[in-house]
Amino acid sequence: MPLWQIHHPENAYSASDKQAFSEAITAIYTDLVHIPAFYVVVIFDEVKTGDMFVGAKQRENFVRLNIDQMARTLPGRVLREFWVHHIDSVIKPWVQDRNFDWEFTIDEPPADLWSLQGFIPPPFESVGEARWIEENKASAYTQAEQLPINVMMAPGTRESL
Amino acid sequence: MPLWQIHHPENAYSASDKQAFSEAITAIYTDLVHIPAFYVVVIFDEVKTGDMFVGAKQRENFVRLNIDQMARTLPGRVLREFWVHHIDSVIKPWVQDRNFDWEFTIDEPPADLWSLQGFIPPPFESVGEARWIEENKASAYTQAEQLPINVMMAPGTRESL
Amino acid sequence: MPLWQIHHPENAYSASDKQAFSEAITAIYTDLVHIPAFYVVVIFDEVKTGDMFVGAKQRENFVRLNIDQMARTLPGRVLREFWVHHIDSVIKPWVQDRNFDWEFTIDEPPADLWSLQGFIPPPFESVGEARWIEENKASAYTQAEQLPINVMMAPGTRESL
Repeated sequence: MPLWQIHHPENAYSASDKQAFSEAITAIYTDLVHIPAFYVVVIFDEVKTGDMFVGAKQRENFVRLNIDQMARTLPGRVLREFWVHHIDSVIKPWVQDRNFDWEFTIDEPPADLWSLQGFIPPPFESVGEARWIEENKASAYTQAEQLPINVMMAPGTRESL
Repeated sequence: MPLWQIHHPENAYSASDKQAFSEAITAIYTDLVHIPAFYVVVIFDEVKTGDMFVGAKQRENFVRLNIDQMARTLPGRVLREFWVHHIDSVIKPWVQDRNFDWEFTIDEPPADLWSLQGFIPPPFESVGEARWIEENKASAYTQAEQLPINVMMAPGTRESL
Repeated sequence: MPLWQIHHPENAYSASDKQAFSEAITAIYTDLVHIPAFYVVVIFDEVKTGDMFVGAKQRENFVRLNIDQMARTLPGRVLREFWVHHIDSVIKPWVQDRNFDWEFTIDEPPADLWSLQGFIPPPFESVGEARWIEENKASAYTQAEQLPINVMMAPGTRESL
């Protein structure tokens, strides 16, 4: 997670294209939101000629990307617009620059119904997540590792109103 | 968007079946909710014999439709029921009339995490959307084109309480 | 519904593997939440070698499961954690025990935008649903069959405060 499913025409991408495309996608998340690289899954799905229609017209140059992001939801209009435009700028070499038309949508499934190697991933920005990023693999984590990296409980625990 | 993914048995539909089916699907949206025809994407996905199970029984005559609708959510019980029944009546020739069993679900991903040709589509029933319908393609739109076709700001801007 | 889409490497599962796997998945629902067996749909999707990437690394031993559950949403943290762990224990023989890495996410599409053989399924734990379980097929149901199996309207209808 995130999961990118890329529905593309026959022979749209070579093996090295797919490698480079999935690297660019992974970098969106590791650079911008600092999640473990192994959270990012990309599946290329070649749609057979004759099986894709846009506006009831059969198309052979259209790429449809379906993105599930469950680790974090994007808060607020400004950030959500930025995110959409940022993704468009990243994927440009594999869609617009090759004269493909394209469309993507992002869905936000619940983050608590998610399992990775048998573990429910640690909370966002927790000590455990930081360790997962460093080790780049899933493993058991303690109760203490569920705490945020920066714990800030003041003033609640110190003062009464 | 909407995106219809149609998981069907091997050789369920000919090329002309797919053309007619995608035309019927597109008409649901262009006739009923007046969105641009090119918003409607249909992908046929042939499931190999032996890869589809219903109630743990392998099936070769079952069609599973997955529908994402992000342009508008359906408000209210009456309209949602109507919509489901309407879709069933439209798809009947390609499922029930061919003795296929079938099931569909509709998901409603967030409309603001959606990009088409690099543009976040203009608001529903806006001046810009009306132009996209007319031109049947995505293009840049102005701030003014984000306004609804029918602007109604009274009485708020004229009277104080 | 639920719908399980299992994206797996080439030749990961034999025909009898798929049969056994789909039986285990179906039993999760029929045993634990008592829904009709025919609600459970499993689609195996063989991903071609070279089309699956995790953390920008091409993988041939990774299984990605996508689960849509629309009949019931899972209420509360405890039950949601239990459910995730329960699924992990059920799928273990087909992932961990075969040295596949794996990940799953569960989405909860709206239950009222769902159609099965042309019927909107009867309410959860209704008389009609009980009959569908018994007959294991979809059929027309009456207004009265939409009532819960255990109707409890007291004290509201008997007493005023």
